[in-house]
Amino acid sequence: MTRTPAYATQAADKPLRPHAIERRAPGVHDVAIDIRYCGVCHSDLHTARNEWNNTLYPSVPGHEIVGTVTAVGKDVQGFKVGDTVGVGCMVDSCGHCDSCKAGEENYCENGFTGTYNGPTQEDHGNTYGGYSGNIVVDEKFVLRITHESELAAVAPLLCAGITTYSPLRHWGAGPGKKIGIVGLGGLGHMGVKLAHAMGAHVVLFTTSPDKIADGKRLGADEVVISKDPAQMAKHAGSFDFILNTVAASHNLDAYLELLKRDGAMCLVGAPEHPHPSPTVFNLIMKRRALAGSLIGGIRETQEMLDFCAKHGIVSDIEMIAMRDINDAYERMLKSDVKYRFVIDMQTLKDEAKAA
Amino acid sequence: MTRTPAYATQAADKPLRPHAIERRAPGVHDVAIDIRYCGVCHSDLHTARNEWNNTLYPSVPGHEIVGTVTAVGKDVQGFKVGDTVGVGCMVDSCGHCDSCKAGEENYCENGFTGTYNGPTQEDHGNTYGGYSGNIVVDEKFVLRITHESELAAVAPLLCAGITTYSPLRHWGAGPGKKIGIVGLGGLGHMGVKLAHAMGAHVVLFTTSPDKIADGKRLGADEVVISKDPAQMAKHAGSFDFILNTVAASHNLDAYLELLKRDGAMCLVGAPEHPHPSPTVFNLIMKRRALAGSLIGGIRETQEMLDFCAKHGIVSDIEMIAMRDINDAYERMLKSDVKYRFVIDMQTLKDEAKAA
Repeated sequence: MTRTPAYATQAADKPLRPHAIERRAPGVHDVAIDIRYCGVCHSDLHTARNEWNNTLYPSVPGHEIVGTVTAVGKDVQGFKVGDTVGVGCMVDSCGHCDSCKAGEENYCENGFTGTYNGPTQEDHGNTYGGYSGNIVVDEKFVLRITHESELAAVAPLLCAGITTYSPLRHWGAGPGKKIGIVGLGGLGHMGVKLAHAMGAHVVLFTTSPDKIADGKRLGADEVVISKDPAQMAKHAGSFDFILNTVAASHNLDAYLELLKRDGAMCLVGAPEHPHPSPTVFNLIMKRRALAGSLIGGIRETQEMLDFCAKHGIVSDIEMIAMRDINDAYERMLKSDVKYRFVIDMQTLKDEAKAA
Repeated sequence: MTRTPAYATQAADKPLRPHAIERRAPGVHDVAIDIRYCGVCHSDLHTARNEWNNTLYPSVPGHEIVGTVTAVGKDVQGFKVGDTVGVGCMVDSCGHCDSCKAGEENYCENGFTGTYNGPTQEDHGNTYGGYSGNIVVDEKFVLRITHESELAAVAPLLCAGITTYSPLRHWGAGPGKKIGIVGLGGLGHMGVKLAHAMGAHVVLFTTSPDKIADGKRLGADEVVISKDPAQMAKHAGSFDFILNTVAASHNLDAYLELLKRDGAMCLVGAPEHPHPSPTVFNLIMKRRALAGSLIGGIRETQEMLDFCAKHGIVSDIEMIAMRDINDAYERMLKSDVKYRFVIDMQTLKDEAKAA
């Protein structure tokens, strides 16, 4: 066991504070990773504040992890000391269900082990995430990172990137396809970049006219102000696929009406209050589908990282120090970030050293 | 123009009554059909009573038509006098949109012409359906019927049959697949028969324990009482596809939870009051889809009729006389029919002759 600095919260109404944790000694299949950067996902906040009513405390969030390998177990094949690697939302899964065998551990039928707040056999009963100095992970859940620079901006690919990449691939985004991205936040801005790089015609939907220029800069061919029914009506029945990244309750019919025959809209955000019930006629009249998608499997996460390295794609980020995490959460709640906070973990190590 | 007896209603709150209509003289591409049987679909009642707020009066319902060809236009290739034929829910479509070109006239982007209540160039401005002595239809919308007997029971295949066949085919029902059918009415009983004939493992969901025996007789491998949470829970995460034929508002989550990863539930009924909004988590956690489907194209309707003829599939019906249609509507509202009313059109002709 090694002791490592971390930031944890002890209860739903408490801020994140310095809190030393223990990491297991690497087993034969494990990779020990010095964490350099960790992205800040909205799920971190939901978990820290027990908004899904399932948080185990102390809670150490963080599942957009980039770091450097410091040790490997004796049976580790794919990694060596000094490699730049990533860890996303999962650190384990059952390995034997149909989904795991298909390489879709994200849909593990026995439930994957989350990078944080997941069940663990260790004493504390709760996995601790990336708001910490290091982490020890089975090599099957460690990703290779081949980006040569901007490593901090690679971190959000591990959750925001794969959450958008996987459904775009699954529903066939590519040349000749008209793809909608709803919402320009952490997920939406990755969706725009990825769909553009896949060669699709990309239309961004946003409520904010002041996001038009940024949407186009990120790769949108068109930006539609979703509050304007006339702009929306022009796109009726024309989309092959819409990726809806908005987690707040909203009218899904306004988007379902924009899908072609056999088009699908995929939700990647779960709203706290339900969306108004979609109109069944909108599904029936063009054999449309309303679907959902959850991150991606390890094989596909690696594919996404390689795709992003090849196409020079990273997240647009704002770097913060570990001690600023509570302020960052407040700003995230106001969507006041373009488009993802990433914690520079050197700040945590320096703080721990100074203490 | 020829005058033909029919049953029509003149307003939402009026019963169906005898009413003579005019049929056009067959054009060069037209087939004139003496109607022998017409099935009674719930859409007939919705339209007669203007429940979709779009009914043109007088309204002559009926879109499950079986009859005999009495005349053909000079350019008709596929039919000759004496042939047994069918007409379903459509009598025309634009012919040039992507859906029409793909043979999916049911999703015509300019709107197909319904067999009744559809727009028409003729003086009355409104197509008249199968509650009538004859009909004249472009041969592109006429189906060949090769069943050698039980022609009355073939009629419901033209709507209830294709409405269930098309989604079962689209979502891959067949050997090795576990398929759910929700509801045992006109649509559901066809869904059970068809999914069984396609070789799938078929599970019928019904609220009525007294339908268990009938469900099994029709081809269900299992019958689940959907009000029993323990029975439902046994099937969690196990279905490839669920065809939901229930048009009344109900809890969709109870069924979405039963789908496997990448499973879909297709709705073929549009409820008067919306279903409770489905839980987004149920879609996200296994990349499930909630979809809809509307009848089928002409090519697929012919395929369905040929499939049914080959497998000896017809509807379970209760034959009625034309004059009993208003009583039949009342019984249909109470689901008091096993499982489809079919009108013997000889009764209409006899009545007209006697008048």
